[in-house]
Amino acid sequence: MFEDSAFDNERRDFVLGLRCISCGRELAAGPGVYTCPACGPKEGILDVIYDYERIKRTVSREQVTGSTDYSLFRYLPFLPVRPDTPRPHLRVGWTPLYRPIGLARQLGISRIYVKDDGQNPTASLKDRASVIAVIKAVEERMTTVACSSTGNAASSLAGNAAAMGLRTFIFVPGRAPQGKIAQLLIFGANVISVQGSYSDAFRLSSEAIERWGWYNRNAAINPYLVEGKKTVALEIAEQLGWEVPDWVVVSVGDGCTIAGIWKGFCDLYRVGWIDRLPKLLGVQSTGCSPLADAFRENRPWCPAEENTLADSIAVGVPRNPEKALRAVRESGGKMVAVPDEEILAAMRLLGRSSGIFAEPAGAAGLAGLRSLLEKGEIGREEKVVVVVTGNGLKDVKNAIAAAGEPIKVEPSLDRLFDELTRRKLV
Amino acid sequence: MFEDSAFDNERRDFVLGLRCISCGRELAAGPGVYTCPACGPKEGILDVIYDYERIKRTVSREQVTGSTDYSLFRYLPFLPVRPDTPRPHLRVGWTPLYRPIGLARQLGISRIYVKDDGQNPTASLKDRASVIAVIKAVEERMTTVACSSTGNAASSLAGNAAAMGLRTFIFVPGRAPQGKIAQLLIFGANVISVQGSYSDAFRLSSEAIERWGWYNRNAAINPYLVEGKKTVALEIAEQLGWEVPDWVVVSVGDGCTIAGIWKGFCDLYRVGWIDRLPKLLGVQSTGCSPLADAFRENRPWCPAEENTLADSIAVGVPRNPEKALRAVRESGGKMVAVPDEEILAAMRLLGRSSGIFAEPAGAAGLAGLRSLLEKGEIGREEKVVVVVTGNGLKDVKNAIAAAGEPIKVEPSLDRLFDELTRRKLV
Repeated sequence: MFEDSAFDNERRDFVLGLRCISCGRELAAGPGVYTCPACGPKEGILDVIYDYERIKRTVSREQVTGSTDYSLFRYLPFLPVRPDTPRPHLRVGWTPLYRPIGLARQLGISRIYVKDDGQNPTASLKDRASVIAVIKAVEERMTTVACSSTGNAASSLAGNAAAMGLRTFIFVPGRAPQGKIAQLLIFGANVISVQGSYSDAFRLSSEAIERWGWYNRNAAINPYLVEGKKTVALEIAEQLGWEVPDWVVVSVGDGCTIAGIWKGFCDLYRVGWIDRLPKLLGVQSTGCSPLADAFRENRPWCPAEENTLADSIAVGVPRNPEKALRAVRESGGKMVAVPDEEILAAMRLLGRSSGIFAEPAGAAGLAGLRSLLEKGEIGREEKVVVVVTGNGLKDVKNAIAAAGEPIKVEPSLDRLFDELTRRKLV
Repeated sequence: MFEDSAFDNERRDFVLGLRCISCGRELAAGPGVYTCPACGPKEGILDVIYDYERIKRTVSREQVTGSTDYSLFRYLPFLPVRPDTPRPHLRVGWTPLYRPIGLARQLGISRIYVKDDGQNPTASLKDRASVIAVIKAVEERMTTVACSSTGNAASSLAGNAAAMGLRTFIFVPGRAPQGKIAQLLIFGANVISVQGSYSDAFRLSSEAIERWGWYNRNAAINPYLVEGKKTVALEIAEQLGWEVPDWVVVSVGDGCTIAGIWKGFCDLYRVGWIDRLPKLLGVQSTGCSPLADAFRENRPWCPAEENTLADSIAVGVPRNPEKALRAVRESGGKMVAVPDEEILAAMRLLGRSSGIFAEPAGAAGLAGLRSLLEKGEIGREEKVVVVVTGNGLKDVKNAIAAAGEPIKVEPSLDRLFDELTRRKLV
């Protein structure tokens, strides 16, 4: 798509540099530069800055709309990767944006859209971050990537690295569920089961990354991951014909995803492809809501218990809290926490009304929306996009908890007749 | 895409009628016509016949290539549905066709492609059939669809019906695995757990369908399902720039999928969009290989044991055997059976080399290809497409069997060093 543009001829990206979100210091992007040296790895999270003027001059919205690359790479000018770096073959991004009539009817809201990011190659939104991670690793001439996680970050890294021919070391705590381990092993990751807690696994991964010089995909530390995540916003805008919705709703754990969504809309606004910004609704579980609590009480966040079945957002100590809170505030949006029962109910609602199977964290956004609709804090005439962040097949145990029971009958039509009549199904 | 064509103005499909594959008798298509009345429901399987001359006149290959409908409905002229019938919102089809370099290297074959149909909405190729089933149900003014299955047919029907606002009754045997039941219940299906064998469930479903007049999605009985499945062939052809591969490889259970693939290529050949046909390789497990055995010994098929972990192709009494065997023979292709260990090895190979996670039946095709490459029955210079029919997340238990074990270590860098050194990983 950019073959004839200045962009492609120059064989470089549109990145100007990196800026610290705490002190504002600007740094040149380059191998090994992940966090601000002045503010340290915790506070000194870096933001990638693009040459928006040059993007405006060399790329048009129509060029993107006409692209036949149906993956997140249709937005290459907004990504921190060089056009000539090899990419994994997996189709990451360009997930469907649905407008389910049944769901709209159930919620009593006419314009509701669902972005199903469970349709990514390893079945979660995290593929958007991991595909950028493996490309950056190749650009920095690394052959091994590492992270500590038992969840979607790990499986997406393992899958994208396998497609790219890179080695991975994934550090997981001993108690990690077998299903998630299986996905990692199938993708050929070297899975290190650390006989200890998640903190032990995280610490050992940091030491090992330092010791052997592997590429670090631990989120938030790495400023490029959020750039991949922001493509979900670019897709939403394009799939709605560049008409920005009133609200974009998503669940919040570490805070990287909602920060990425905000970055995506801001990027489009900067280059003039959209004429306004949406409000963001960030949703957590009441069992683990450090950011929703801080937002509601307008105070700094503090660590929380991790007491929710939505494992992908069970993050008591989020690694990107400031970016997330800032994004929601700047957007004029809200944060809300919902009990786990409402998350399970949202899984059922989404499945039954729309044929979309979400993992608990994937349905949490819908639960939050439902709650604010009922309270009248979001109007029923507003245009809303809910992002489903992961596929329910990742977590069958909780799906069973949400789903209810089948109807048991003996193999006889008479018995079936009795049973269905009793339940008023025939 | 057809808005300006005669096709759309007439608001009808290109179907001429139905033809019995046993006696050749032609029937008008219409509500309730599923099998040949002369030959009966077992032998009298019907084939949908299109007006290929009219398709040739009114639709060009370039129109399809330029379509922005990235679902199987880009091939609407080749489908037995009217253009104006409502459709579920789910994005069925237009799954990615990958060319994984790592897999090519491992197999020693240069031109190998993988069609990942695990990327469909409910994570299997069966969505292609179920989406047609629910549309035909709506065309016939039915509001309830039923089938008996514990597998991908059931979950894809439940998902597509939910998206369409239809009720479903799914009959499963009592022993059905919980994970599959959960997927059905999440989609709001009325799941009837029949306390008996699979045959009991099938029989009760047939009686209930007859009793309450529900729409019948039991495969093979319904002539329209194979029409949905054939779209995987149309996509392969288009994604290869209408250059037909030498071989298309797929696992075989009931026989409907391989028959559908053949129908798809034949359709394209009939309208002159491709200039030759591929050979088909049908793969079964040695634990359940009625069709591969019949093919090899060139004799009629007979029922077999169902002794394989690849549950989606554990079909001892296939319901579409003749169409399947005929397709492979007409194509000049082959059938082969491979042991379950080779299927598990193919799962590992596909995951590690390509980042694709297949269920056992989904990887069986690759196992068969590997076997014929080793025997020299498929040449290493040939161009081969392997169809992955379902996502590995559907069957985590067997993935664990295939995947091996993680590396267990205490949380200490020294211990990790020892362990990785011993395994020659650092």
